[in-house]
Amino acid sequence: MAPDEERGRPGRAQPTMNHVAARAGVGLSTVSRVVNGDPHVSTAKSAAVQRAIEELGYRRNESARQFRTGATETVGLVIEDVTDPFFSQLSQSVEDVARDRGSMLLVASYRRENDRARQIIHSLSARRLEGIVVTPSERGDVSYYASELNSGLQMVFVDRPAPGHIADAVITDNRASCRDGVAHLIAQGHRRIACLTDRAHLYTTLERLAGYRDAIEAAGLTYDPVLVHSSVPDDGQHRVALARMLDSAAPPTAIFTCNNRATISVLKGLSLRDEKPALLGFDDLELAGSLTPGLSVIAQDPFAMGRIATEQLFQRIDGYRGPARTTMLPATLVTRGSAETGPPR
Amino acid sequence: MAPDEERGRPGRAQPTMNHVAARAGVGLSTVSRVVNGDPHVSTAKSAAVQRAIEELGYRRNESARQFRTGATETVGLVIEDVTDPFFSQLSQSVEDVARDRGSMLLVASYRRENDRARQIIHSLSARRLEGIVVTPSERGDVSYYASELNSGLQMVFVDRPAPGHIADAVITDNRASCRDGVAHLIAQGHRRIACLTDRAHLYTTLERLAGYRDAIEAAGLTYDPVLVHSSVPDDGQHRVALARMLDSAAPPTAIFTCNNRATISVLKGLSLRDEKPALLGFDDLELAGSLTPGLSVIAQDPFAMGRIATEQLFQRIDGYRGPARTTMLPATLVTRGSAETGPPR
Repeated sequence: MAPDEERGRPGRAQPTMNHVAARAGVGLSTVSRVVNGDPHVSTAKSAAVQRAIEELGYRRNESARQFRTGATETVGLVIEDVTDPFFSQLSQSVEDVARDRGSMLLVASYRRENDRARQIIHSLSARRLEGIVVTPSERGDVSYYASELNSGLQMVFVDRPAPGHIADAVITDNRASCRDGVAHLIAQGHRRIACLTDRAHLYTTLERLAGYRDAIEAAGLTYDPVLVHSSVPDDGQHRVALARMLDSAAPPTAIFTCNNRATISVLKGLSLRDEKPALLGFDDLELAGSLTPGLSVIAQDPFAMGRIATEQLFQRIDGYRGPARTTMLPATLVTRGSAETGPPR
Repeated sequence: MAPDEERGRPGRAQPTMNHVAARAGVGLSTVSRVVNGDPHVSTAKSAAVQRAIEELGYRRNESARQFRTGATETVGLVIEDVTDPFFSQLSQSVEDVARDRGSMLLVASYRRENDRARQIIHSLSARRLEGIVVTPSERGDVSYYASELNSGLQMVFVDRPAPGHIADAVITDNRASCRDGVAHLIAQGHRRIACLTDRAHLYTTLERLAGYRDAIEAAGLTYDPVLVHSSVPDDGQHRVALARMLDSAAPPTAIFTCNNRATISVLKGLSLRDEKPALLGFDDLELAGSLTPGLSVIAQDPFAMGRIATEQLFQRIDGYRGPARTTMLPATLVTRGSAETGPPR
């Protein structure tokens, strides 16, 4: 921990709410309501207060904040698995923004264990971190997120929205990007398109599957549950499901995989077979362009997700108390060949 | 930070050096010498003391340790870049061992910036971490590692030895594994084998290049510096060097890449060309088996490296003060096709 004398900023008096009120020409209660995100303030007054806050560099309750966080200029990142390239890129991005703020990063992976996610959050809160960026676990009782928020731990959620929308979240527009990607496969002439996803209860699975279904139905095709499989992508179940589909009487001619783990499972499964169905993956992979054919993907932007989430986290740490925001990021279709072939004639 | 009352362990008195001496049937000074790694203690006495330490669960200077670390049950990991799969796997492994000890993990990446590495170490030390696992930067003044060790920050080095061998280190047997790998290429009939490496000053580059040269010379071939290129692998220089070699009058028929970044650069470069030289990479890649042909590699074990380093770090944190140890891990040749073809006839 830096000693106290390093943290103080002598020579720069901290502005108070009274300064903000005077500068904005409003009452103290109005400043308080703006700072706490109360919607019952006129737009003009709210704008004046926001302008005064920026001009004065006001930070809400600075001493309370320092009391809480003084010992640790540290933020946390809670993710599923740092060896997943999506999460390692997110981690680098969060670390970079934190570093620009003089903060270091605690990283903790819960590896799909909800109890572990809970322990991690509790442990980070007990360490009085400034705040955390978190990919929420989505099973079991997740009310502890709300409790921790209420106790003063700032949180921004990534990849999946906050349970109950209780906090800021930065997520990809999964449904629209998957709809467009599957429509791209349909435009190549495919009529039977398999969809291999992660666990069915995940928010991202549900959204990506909804996008798949949107495209199927928009093209006047029939949604066939036989062509959809959801499970943990790493344990061989995906490969079994793929083989079952390809060995059926009406096999798929194209495959859509709903995240990088599913894509890798399917690539491994296809390497054991003669069929070469068209393939579109969700999430880019570093060697995608070196495969034969090149792997076409819907590319998320984990760097942007981490950057925006961490910036929003520091806004909260600095005292912003507006209502929870959800930021939706686009994903990009990258065509490299694997999804640009039609069905066999 | 956990409040003090959570950290204490009432009901379990901490054993002291006096308890250890009594149990081992030796004097207090002997216990002190064993604990501090003094070699001038008989093997029998040393063994008796070690046994007593284990039986009693003695930890050296527990109160001093808690004074230093009580506020943070946290270890640090200092690496080049968490988006590199080698480092993300190392990170997961360190986190898992730390978690089993009730510690959390601060991760910091210095991205090849030596000044940043120094700032990070200083910052971690100022936070009074229990200890750190660190991939040393190797340029500029690295004497700060020794200063931090002297100030009581425990360190274990990974991937590259500690500067001046001042601390424990866990490294791969780079030279032997590269010699065997390049000998494998020579056994396929290759006589001109290019070697693309990371920056020339890195310990790992020097060792892997030495292994390459060992194999070349053991086969009675001539080491040709025209076939060797060293640079940061991500910035296109590798691809330029590769093109220059392949366009020369005596092009290589096989390529050895000295880490995962170099392999990816070369794969990208080769995707733009008609030649398909044999290829052997150092470091495994997740999609290696999905490439055509499958990518043969010399696979390090970053999980074992992280696990052993973190276990050694906790031994140091618990008071072990023996001389600095260097643990050498083997690497495994994994044949998937790309290195199992001879030169064109």
